[in-house]
Amino acid sequence: MQNPNLTSLSEWKELKAQARAMSLPKNHLRNLLNQKDRLEKFSLNAEGLFFDFSRQRVNEQVLALLLGIAKKRKLRQNFNKMTSGKHVNLTEDRAALHTATRSFSKESVIENGKNIMPEIIRIREQIKKFSREVHSGKITGSTGLPFKDVVVIGIGGSYLGTEFVATALQFLADKGITLHFLSNVDIDCFGGIASRILPETTLWIVISKSYTTAETAANENQAIQFMKKNGIDPARHLLRVTSQGSPGDDPSKPALRIFHMFDYIGGRFSVTSAVGGVPLSLYLGYDRFERFLRGAEKMDIHAKTAPESRNIPLLAALISVWNNNFLHYPAQGIIPYSSALSKLPPHIQQLAMESCGKSVTQTGEILNVPCGSIIFGEPGTNAQHSFFQLAHQGRPFPIDFIGVIHPHHRENLITSKGVTNHQELWANLIAQPQALARGREDKNPAKFFPGNRPSSTLVIPDLSPESIGGLLAFYEAKTVYEAFIWGINPFDQYGVELGKVMASHLREQMAQKNKDPDHLFEDPDPISRFYLETLFKKSVQPRSRSSAGKQ
Amino acid sequence: MQNPNLTSLSEWKELKAQARAMSLPKNHLRNLLNQKDRLEKFSLNAEGLFFDFSRQRVNEQVLALLLGIAKKRKLRQNFNKMTSGKHVNLTEDRAALHTATRSFSKESVIENGKNIMPEIIRIREQIKKFSREVHSGKITGSTGLPFKDVVVIGIGGSYLGTEFVATALQFLADKGITLHFLSNVDIDCFGGIASRILPETTLWIVISKSYTTAETAANENQAIQFMKKNGIDPARHLLRVTSQGSPGDDPSKPALRIFHMFDYIGGRFSVTSAVGGVPLSLYLGYDRFERFLRGAEKMDIHAKTAPESRNIPLLAALISVWNNNFLHYPAQGIIPYSSALSKLPPHIQQLAMESCGKSVTQTGEILNVPCGSIIFGEPGTNAQHSFFQLAHQGRPFPIDFIGVIHPHHRENLITSKGVTNHQELWANLIAQPQALARGREDKNPAKFFPGNRPSSTLVIPDLSPESIGGLLAFYEAKTVYEAFIWGINPFDQYGVELGKVMASHLREQMAQKNKDPDHLFEDPDPISRFYLETLFKKSVQPRSRSSAGKQ
Repeated sequence: MQNPNLTSLSEWKELKAQARAMSLPKNHLRNLLNQKDRLEKFSLNAEGLFFDFSRQRVNEQVLALLLGIAKKRKLRQNFNKMTSGKHVNLTEDRAALHTATRSFSKESVIENGKNIMPEIIRIREQIKKFSREVHSGKITGSTGLPFKDVVVIGIGGSYLGTEFVATALQFLADKGITLHFLSNVDIDCFGGIASRILPETTLWIVISKSYTTAETAANENQAIQFMKKNGIDPARHLLRVTSQGSPGDDPSKPALRIFHMFDYIGGRFSVTSAVGGVPLSLYLGYDRFERFLRGAEKMDIHAKTAPESRNIPLLAALISVWNNNFLHYPAQGIIPYSSALSKLPPHIQQLAMESCGKSVTQTGEILNVPCGSIIFGEPGTNAQHSFFQLAHQGRPFPIDFIGVIHPHHRENLITSKGVTNHQELWANLIAQPQALARGREDKNPAKFFPGNRPSSTLVIPDLSPESIGGLLAFYEAKTVYEAFIWGINPFDQYGVELGKVMASHLREQMAQKNKDPDHLFEDPDPISRFYLETLFKKSVQPRSRSSAGKQ
Repeated sequence: MQNPNLTSLSEWKELKAQARAMSLPKNHLRNLLNQKDRLEKFSLNAEGLFFDFSRQRVNEQVLALLLGIAKKRKLRQNFNKMTSGKHVNLTEDRAALHTATRSFSKESVIENGKNIMPEIIRIREQIKKFSREVHSGKITGSTGLPFKDVVVIGIGGSYLGTEFVATALQFLADKGITLHFLSNVDIDCFGGIASRILPETTLWIVISKSYTTAETAANENQAIQFMKKNGIDPARHLLRVTSQGSPGDDPSKPALRIFHMFDYIGGRFSVTSAVGGVPLSLYLGYDRFERFLRGAEKMDIHAKTAPESRNIPLLAALISVWNNNFLHYPAQGIIPYSSALSKLPPHIQQLAMESCGKSVTQTGEILNVPCGSIIFGEPGTNAQHSFFQLAHQGRPFPIDFIGVIHPHHRENLITSKGVTNHQELWANLIAQPQALARGREDKNPAKFFPGNRPSSTLVIPDLSPESIGGLLAFYEAKTVYEAFIWGINPFDQYGVELGKVMASHLREQMAQKNKDPDHLFEDPDPISRFYLETLFKKSVQPRSRSSAGKQ
C-alpha cells in the first residue's frame, strides 16, 4: 500500500510542476528577492515570533498550493483533535496532550471520558510547593544541608528539552543550584559528575516515563550506591518523575517525592510536564517555569486558531515538506545566533527526527515519498567558521536562522570597529541568508557562489522564559503539522526497538560471562562475538593478517 | 570544464554498475554478512586503531575497484607530497604541513627551500617551558596569584580541535586549571565567562592565524577592557597564538607571550601546532600534549607508508566516496560510544565539511559529482534515544561507530541487570550496527526494519593522549585522502568569504548609525534594511497585515 491520499492530490501534482519551474534560472532566489514587497508577502508575526520565509524558494502559486494541501489534509482540524484529547497516536492508542501541560484555560480537556486538567494542575501545584520548600531550606538533604546540585538522570526526551530550556535561561538561574545531566550510561559520565558534587548537597531526579530504560536504571543504581557509600539516605536525596502506574511509581521504593507524568505525554514533547517542571523549577524557580509555560500556551493557541495562511508553525511545516519532497533537500540546519540557544539544535534533532523519521502512515501504509530530514546545527557565528563552506559552495541545505533582539548582557556597549558584539552578531545574521540566497558571480570558479540556497529567519525579542516557551511550542507544533501532512504518527518510535532487543541479548551473554569466566559466547553472529571477546579480553585480538578484501 | 580525470576512469564506470548491483536484494547487507570471514576480510588493525568496515555495503570487487582509483589518482604519492612540503594548497600557493607539527623524526621537512623542523621544535620548546613555568608558579598574574582559569579566544579551527582533545582528556587535567572557550561574538558568551572567572587568576589566549577575524578581535577587546576595569595588566594576562608576521605578531602590543603558527598550517588542521599546544599544555601538562603528538605521528606514518589495501584512512576515504557518489548518501553520522568524545563530531564536522564542501577541483574545473557530506553526531547511547528512529526506519545515512575498550573510570564495577555500565554501553555499541545492517521482517509495517544501513566501527584502546592523537590524525588523513580522490583542495575555504564581505558592509552601516542616530540605512536590499531597523528599534516593527502570500 502507498500513501495515495497525499500524492494523488491535485495540488501535489501541480507542486511537482512548480518545483521543475523553480529550478529555472529566472526563478533563482536572487530574482525572487527582486519581487516588490517580498518580505511583506512572505513573513508573519505573531505571539512574539517573527517568521520570515522570504528567502525560501517559494512564490505565491507554491504557497497557494501548499495551503490547499493544508486544507485537504484537514491539518487544523487534526491539530484540534490532538489538543482536545482524541487518540491521535493511533498505533499506541493514546492521546497526545503536551499542550494541556501548559494550559491555563478553564476549559476541560477530556481524555478517555475524564477531564485531565485537575491532575495537570495538581502536578503543577506539587512542583511549585516542592521547589519553594527546597529554595526556602524547608526541604534539605539528610544531613540538614541545603541542596546545591541537582542531577537529572534521564536520556532522550527525559532530558534534551530540559537541557535546551535550562541553557537558554541560564542567566536567570539565581537559586544557588547547579544543574547536571546524567544521560549516557557511559561510566565516565557518572564518574565525572560524582567528582564534581558533594553527596550531602545533591538531589537526584530520576526521569523515565516507562521506568524500564536500561541506561537510566543503571545510572540510578550508581547514584544509590554512591549515596549509600557516603552515608546519605536516598529517600531524602532522590526523587522520581515517571508515568502514573510505572514500576517507578512505587511508594515502597524509597524516594523523597514521586511526580507523575501521563501516558498522553510523549517523551520528546514532555518538557512542559513534570519532566521539565521539576528540574527547571529547582534551577530557575517555579515562577519562571510558569512564565515559560505561558509562552508555550500562547503559541499553542496561535497554532490551533490562526487561519492557515497566517499560522506560523503550519506554514513552516508546509515549507519543510516543500523543501523535502519537491526540492529534495535531505537535511536542514538550525542556526541560532545566540549561544544560549546552543541546545536548541540537539533538542529539535530529537523532536523532528524521532517524530518524522518514519516510513509508514498512521494506518500502516508504506509512504511513497521520503519524510523526515536530518537536523543538525550549531550557534552562529560559530557555524560560519565551521561548516558554512559546504552550505555556500557544496551541498545545499535549508537553514532556520534564529535571531534574538535583546541579548541577556545588554548593558555591555564596548565597541570594536564601531559596533558592539551584539551588533557584530547581527551583521552576520543579516548577511548570511542574503549571501546564501543571492550568491555572487566570479570568473574564478573557486570564488563563484551559486546562491539559490533557501533559509527562513525567525526572530524572538529576548531570552525570557516566555520567548523560550514560544520557540519550543513553535517547533513542537511545526513537527506535529509536518507529520499530519504526511499522515504519519509523530508520537511513536518503533524504530528504536530492534536495537534494544539485540542489546538485551548481548547483555545477557555478558552477564553470564561475568558470573562464569569460562562461559563461551554463543552469539551466532561472528562479528558480535568478536566484539564481545574484545570487550572481555580488553584488547582487539590479532586476526588474519591479510590485506583488506583479499583472502 | 568538468572533472573528467576522475569520472572517466574505467573503475569509476565499473563502480556505477557495481552500485546498481548492490541495490539488488541478494546484496542486502544481511546477505553480505553471511559471507565467510566477512570481518577478517573487511577490517584492519594498525597503530592502536581497529577499523571494521564489514557492515559497509562493499564486496571484494567494489574494494578492488576503489583501490584501483587510489592508485590511478596517486593518492599516496600526493600524501607524500603534502608531508614533504610541496605546495599542495594550489589556490593559496602554500604547503600543508600539519604533519610536521607532530614529527619527532630527525628528517628535514623542506618548505620553500628551508627546513622548517627547527622552527617547529622551537615552538614546542617554548610551549614546554612556558607551561611548566605557569604550573610551577614562576609565571603568575599581575597580582602574583597563580593562573586558575585559561580562556581561549578563537573561533572555528582556532578552538574546535582543542575543545575536542581537552574534552577527551578531561579526566587527566590535574594542573588546577579550568579551560574555557570564548568563540562566539555573542556578548552573552563573554558575559557568561566573565561572571565565572576572577580577573587576577585568568590567562587569556587569543588564537587567530590571520589576526583579522572580527569575532576574535571583538572578544579580545572585551577581555582587555575587562582586565583594565579590574586593574589587571593585560601584558601579564594575555598571550597570542598567531601566524608569523600577522597583525597580532607585533611586540609593541602588550602580551605575555606570542607563539607562532605558520602559513603552512591550516586552521582546521592546527590542533597539533601552538593553537592546540598552548592551551592543552596548560590544561594537561606539556608531557601529555607531547604524548598526544606522538599518537598522531604514528597514524601519520601509517597513512603515509601503509600500502593502499592496508591503509586505514585511505580505505575509509574510498568508502566515503563510494557512499557519497555511488550509493548517494548525502550525510554521515559520527557516534562515539564515549561521552568524553562528545566534541569529536563538531570537530570533524568542521574538518570534513570545510575541507570537502567544494564544487571545483584544485585547478578550477567544476566537479561533475557532488563531494563532501553533511556530518553530524552525538555520543551513543544518547543518539539512540534521539535521532536513531530516523536512522533505522527513515532516511538512511552511513555511520561511524566509535568504541573505547577501557573507560577512564574502569574501577567502577557496580552492575545492573548483571552488567557494568561500560558493558551496557558496549552491548548497545555491538547491537546497533547489526540492527541497522540486518533489519527485521515484521508483518506490521510500523515494526518492519528494512536494514541495509551501512556503518563502520572504529575501536581505540582507551582515552589516553596517544589514542586521541591517533584518532585525530586518522580523521585528518581520511579527509585529505577524500579530497585527493576528488581532486579538490582541502586547505582553502573561499566559500566563507561572501558572507564576511556582506557582514562588513552591514557593520559599517551600524557603526554610522551608532555615531549618528539620524543616519538612514542605505542598504539597497529592503530585507537587510528591515533587519537593521529591527535591531536599532529593538523590536519587529508592524508590517503589512495581509495574509502570507497575498497582497
